[in-house]
Amino acid sequence: MRILFKNAHVLRRDAGGRWNALENAYLGTDGRYIGYIGTEAPKGSWDLVKDMSGKLLMPGLVNAHGHAAMTLLRGVGSGLPLQRWLEEAIFPIEAKMAPQDIIAGTRVAVMEMLASGTTLCSDMYDFPWDAVRVFEEAGMKVNSGRVLLCFDPDMKAEDCERLKECEQFVKDFTGRGGEGLKDGAEGLVKADIVLHSEYLTTENTVRALADIAKKYDCAVQLHVSETEKEHEECKERHEGLTPAAYLERCGLLDTPTYMAHCVWATDEDLDIMKNKGASLVHNPTSNMKLGSGFAPVAKALEKGVNVALGTDGCASNNNLNMFEEMHLAALLQKGLYRDPTLVTADQILDMATVNGAKALGRPDTGELREGMRADVIAVDMSKPHMRPAVDIPSLLVYSAQASDVTMTMVDGKILYENNAYTTIDPVKAEEEFKAAVARLLA
Amino acid sequence: MRILFKNAHVLRRDAGGRWNALENAYLGTDGRYIGYIGTEAPKGSWDLVKDMSGKLLMPGLVNAHGHAAMTLLRGVGSGLPLQRWLEEAIFPIEAKMAPQDIIAGTRVAVMEMLASGTTLCSDMYDFPWDAVRVFEEAGMKVNSGRVLLCFDPDMKAEDCERLKECEQFVKDFTGRGGEGLKDGAEGLVKADIVLHSEYLTTENTVRALADIAKKYDCAVQLHVSETEKEHEECKERHEGLTPAAYLERCGLLDTPTYMAHCVWATDEDLDIMKNKGASLVHNPTSNMKLGSGFAPVAKALEKGVNVALGTDGCASNNNLNMFEEMHLAALLQKGLYRDPTLVTADQILDMATVNGAKALGRPDTGELREGMRADVIAVDMSKPHMRPAVDIPSLLVYSAQASDVTMTMVDGKILYENNAYTTIDPVKAEEEFKAAVARLLA
Repeated sequence: MRILFKNAHVLRRDAGGRWNALENAYLGTDGRYIGYIGTEAPKGSWDLVKDMSGKLLMPGLVNAHGHAAMTLLRGVGSGLPLQRWLEEAIFPIEAKMAPQDIIAGTRVAVMEMLASGTTLCSDMYDFPWDAVRVFEEAGMKVNSGRVLLCFDPDMKAEDCERLKECEQFVKDFTGRGGEGLKDGAEGLVKADIVLHSEYLTTENTVRALADIAKKYDCAVQLHVSETEKEHEECKERHEGLTPAAYLERCGLLDTPTYMAHCVWATDEDLDIMKNKGASLVHNPTSNMKLGSGFAPVAKALEKGVNVALGTDGCASNNNLNMFEEMHLAALLQKGLYRDPTLVTADQILDMATVNGAKALGRPDTGELREGMRADVIAVDMSKPHMRPAVDIPSLLVYSAQASDVTMTMVDGKILYENNAYTTIDPVKAEEEFKAAVARLLA
Repeated sequence: MRILFKNAHVLRRDAGGRWNALENAYLGTDGRYIGYIGTEAPKGSWDLVKDMSGKLLMPGLVNAHGHAAMTLLRGVGSGLPLQRWLEEAIFPIEAKMAPQDIIAGTRVAVMEMLASGTTLCSDMYDFPWDAVRVFEEAGMKVNSGRVLLCFDPDMKAEDCERLKECEQFVKDFTGRGGEGLKDGAEGLVKADIVLHSEYLTTENTVRALADIAKKYDCAVQLHVSETEKEHEECKERHEGLTPAAYLERCGLLDTPTYMAHCVWATDEDLDIMKNKGASLVHNPTSNMKLGSGFAPVAKALEKGVNVALGTDGCASNNNLNMFEEMHLAALLQKGLYRDPTLVTADQILDMATVNGAKALGRPDTGELREGMRADVIAVDMSKPHMRPAVDIPSLLVYSAQASDVTMTMVDGKILYENNAYTTIDPVKAEEEFKAAVARLLA
């Protein structure tokens, strides 16, 4: 399928990291890739030509940390202290979850993400084999994996069933590619090695997991230094090592790793991340909502750490709205350090697109360029709150709402347009979601 | 005109400050007032009956601090340090503004506010006589006044032309009421006494302004302790008095005062505000964007200070989206004090509605109750990001987007519904706005 968008503004990133709109331009897809961007009408025939007057085309957003099926728990226990929230509100419900719940919750998450311009996300939750099927059916991209959890300090790696499942997921999804993809390109699902965290695993199993990551050359996702308690207790457990230093010692940072939260990451931790090529995934809403604190994003950027953005799960956010995360991430460091020049709109756009794609090991998405995957969203620039169009990056970061997204395309396929989904039956999705919520919250 | 909404959820505040939805309810208007709320079908005839299935009716939001016409400056100088932003980007353009610009900028602000559920706002800007006409024509509520500025320390109050203009505005708009209003009720425009700030005025003129406020029993709006610099320099100028203490000494707090920002307000300042019945208007986005800091909102609430919410002007926000301010205000104190129990969703709904109404001296709005003004908005609860509806206040504060507002009614009149305005010509508004921007940014 070849689709041509005309009369569009096309947001591109220049080599210097500035985002600029090419005005009154064409963008043409060629199967799953972007085939043409320019101001001259392109040659060739098109299956569909779409007039994008008043719209800006930009790369789809990358939500680099989340737990998709937690839509089921949106608003549950809101306002409780962290431990009570987990133990009284969240864990008892999660214990009841079955694959059909995960499927229903993930589908609503996919609907919410597509409607708010996210084309690729990271997912970390139970029943990942079932969850990724929902993404594949919907046509959205996801990095996922079986989550390593291990509480027994004496557990040998070879006896750990979870480790085998982690490897099995990678075997099942690595190198599958897909129809119409270039050699070596990742399909909709990319297998990650997933470590819950230092505090819910053991050194034996983390070291073994690092070996699996190396064997398959996988990206590794995990939670790091989210709370002060976790950060300090890690030092007590591991000869004064912070979580980042401990993970480095375990060999887990030898493959590209993306670390959610890093609220309590020290300067030395950021140096380790920079040296090892690890990414920091900033989740500003969740970190505030749970009272965890503020991640040192300005410092990380200054040190050259790759910083991406995530929503975290719906239960601690309470949405999957990347425009809100962009907005918050842009504001927070300015307020914290009382410096309005910190964290520019360009840097925020990087975090929400190319940096996220880099973190997730997806170098062929995150920007609009010929030859990149056609992960494209359209933003309506005509509403009163988007006037005047003096500074496009600033408008997108500070003024836009997620609902300004009018179209979401992944791999050249339009999945969402003007409140309608092309691959999801919203009535069925709502029924299944309601049934799952009724079961779980009963 | 009598309008009946049926099959609605109606959000009400109980005497204990809890917000609850009355399900499958009716809300009937009676002219400019709410005539009926209940689950039984009301008697009587109706000019219009509207099915509100899947919608929540809630009180219109109160934006308690702003500079409406600054929509013209949205995104201008974004990211510059504060002084350079003001001196290089903002002031030179403001110096060129004429009434036609103010009218065009204010109209786009009104459109943006109506579309995002704001029914009443505070406005502080140049040419207020022209600006309030835009609100009156659109049917939206505003508190406004002539802004006192005075830089000459030797200026006698009786020689100050601005003071006369401040009084003239109050004379022009106080007690005008309007057709269909109860005795003593305020019309769409309510005259405020407006002091720019301690730092852009003199003690003589502030004292004289306080006398005018007393004479007409007006609410007073002003900027207080926005930046550390301003707060500290006030102490140098006024025998160690903070802005709040200085204003108290000037007699300005003897009438109800609502103070924007208060980022640097001390515990003693909050005590003064509590004792004098002054309100704190929290502008979280603007305070972060300009690098001013974080207002002590949790402390103010604990002390019983009336806390309202505002967007500030578009140039430092960069929108007029009260849902974003609610979201931010709810998150910020939790992150700052690392306590997820601080500032509940109920408290945030108070800030955005009843507290704002109280600050602006509008006791007949801010809640949905029989006999209150019919300032009502409808929120679409059917989108994926609004599921499940476990906790309505939490959904509205943490999950909702401004675009979920499908209808905005002020004084019983529907002004906005499903992206259309009933009192504003959007094409003409856009043309006039574009012309103003072209003139100003030329």
